[in-house]
Amino acid sequence: MPVASRAWWATPPPAHATHTHIVIGMADSTFFRNYAAEVRPLINAALESYTSFGADCPAHLKEAIRYSLLGPGKKLRPLLVLMAAETCGSTREDALPAACAVEMLHAYSLIHDDLPAMDDDDMRRGRPSCHAKFGQATAILAGDALLTLAFEVLARHQQPPQTAALCCAHLAAAAGAEGMVGGQADDLNAEFSNGDLAMLKHIHRRKTGAMIRVSVLLGGLVGGANNEQTGRLVAYGEKLGLAFQIVDDLLDFQGDEAAVGKRTGKDSARGKLTFPTIMGAEKSRAEAAALIQAAREQISPWGVRAKGFDSLATFVLERNQ
Amino acid sequence: MPVASRAWWATPPPAHATHTHIVIGMADSTFFRNYAAEVRPLINAALESYTSFGADCPAHLKEAIRYSLLGPGKKLRPLLVLMAAETCGSTREDALPAACAVEMLHAYSLIHDDLPAMDDDDMRRGRPSCHAKFGQATAILAGDALLTLAFEVLARHQQPPQTAALCCAHLAAAAGAEGMVGGQADDLNAEFSNGDLAMLKHIHRRKTGAMIRVSVLLGGLVGGANNEQTGRLVAYGEKLGLAFQIVDDLLDFQGDEAAVGKRTGKDSARGKLTFPTIMGAEKSRAEAAALIQAAREQISPWGVRAKGFDSLATFVLERNQ
Repeated sequence: MPVASRAWWATPPPAHATHTHIVIGMADSTFFRNYAAEVRPLINAALESYTSFGADCPAHLKEAIRYSLLGPGKKLRPLLVLMAAETCGSTREDALPAACAVEMLHAYSLIHDDLPAMDDDDMRRGRPSCHAKFGQATAILAGDALLTLAFEVLARHQQPPQTAALCCAHLAAAAGAEGMVGGQADDLNAEFSNGDLAMLKHIHRRKTGAMIRVSVLLGGLVGGANNEQTGRLVAYGEKLGLAFQIVDDLLDFQGDEAAVGKRTGKDSARGKLTFPTIMGAEKSRAEAAALIQAAREQISPWGVRAKGFDSLATFVLERNQ
Repeated sequence: MPVASRAWWATPPPAHATHTHIVIGMADSTFFRNYAAEVRPLINAALESYTSFGADCPAHLKEAIRYSLLGPGKKLRPLLVLMAAETCGSTREDALPAACAVEMLHAYSLIHDDLPAMDDDDMRRGRPSCHAKFGQATAILAGDALLTLAFEVLARHQQPPQTAALCCAHLAAAAGAEGMVGGQADDLNAEFSNGDLAMLKHIHRRKTGAMIRVSVLLGGLVGGANNEQTGRLVAYGEKLGLAFQIVDDLLDFQGDEAAVGKRTGKDSARGKLTFPTIMGAEKSRAEAAALIQAAREQISPWGVRAKGFDSLATFVLERNQ
């Protein structure tokens, strides 16, 4: 249900919610973990049904697509879509096509990034990466198919069609040459270079940030967010996305291989630019914490309705604990 | 301008068009060649403007994208979009976003198909293929960016948004796991196999046919075609697409390397299934001619308005002369 254009959170909270700020101040990751546990089965069921291809899809291609899409994973991006839609007053079911589209796009990006010609990773989420299991040709095609399917699901199932077209345009801009693909291209070139912090942030704003940013944006569009709300959601997404990347770099820098599920220490070993190698681990941790605090402030006007976002912010920081 | 739902071609042609069938009976490829020469600059200018990326797109990625998209090429698919839109009563300018989208999608498919892990072609249109010139990582990313951009252009610029969403859904279905990508996956697996004609047709209906079919479909949607018109356009596209592929196989089988601009005889040499290797060259030629005749019949109710389609049918056959 679209929200009226008035800043509705400026109205006094109902009596039972007067302890909102205390709750938010104490937010831990439990709320987000519970929300994710409740909602992930919905997302997985929708992803399953969107990839139940008929006989025109070769069996090994279908298997590779579903292996990469339906395997273990945080499903962070679709959860962001659904949380944003619900925060703005829509139902999670309304936003499922957009949520599935961002997860398909994310899955494609991991498959292609892992290829030998790119990051050359043979492990992903504790299992062989797509090309390690199915071969390079099938992995390239599975990625292509997932990228294509993201737009089909969005265009065909997101309602109304005007919102679908707008979501397609924003998702493509975030994922394309000036977004995620551009960031990955610069990241590959930045290996062994003497990049600085500005360059690293420019890469990650596009490589990982753009997709997290567009996830909350799509949820907001489905939920009928007004301009101010959209601005707050996008700012939250940008700060959360950068914090998420810093924590990812920290995990690679110091993490335990078994816990992360992919080879760690690899980025530093091959001279890839990361936040801890440029800023040191301590400053990286402080930067991530400051970003998470700033992200929290953006969504504070929603009060309890944004509790999922608040709890997720804690969750992102906790990954490094 | 959308066409009324009545079968408008059932009305008598105006007096000056009474020689329609004589004209069509005599159709040669001149009309299509002239049309293409007139319209290609429009298409190229639009493709140029859609790929004038800002600083967020790395320079080498932008160069690879434009090298593959703006180089020499027939631009057959965008011409089909524009002809279909004009035949149905729209202007060619109205359909330019859809026309550019199908060309971007085609360019991406060539880049990825040429990769070493796929068809392993180092030449394309008489020049080094994308990965031969820019390296594999950049080629994979340039393909990904073009695929993504196709949907951005369609979603953002095709009007109205309902048509944009519908075009995105059809284009993605044609290009995805049950369409072009599925056909390419089966084609790679069919090498050295003892496939039959049914298998070969099943591959090509998806690998090359689906994109030609959807090109006329998108033009019809933009032009406001009714159901009967859409059916005729799609049937024309299917027959033309299969004829085009048979002629392509014949060119590889017997063609002159310099004229085709890529290595010929390669498909047969590596045991790839082709029409002449299964049916022989003579039967292949007869099949292509019969398909072209059947395609012509589909568009005959439009009379002179479909002269471009009629002339194109001749053009496709002439490629093998």
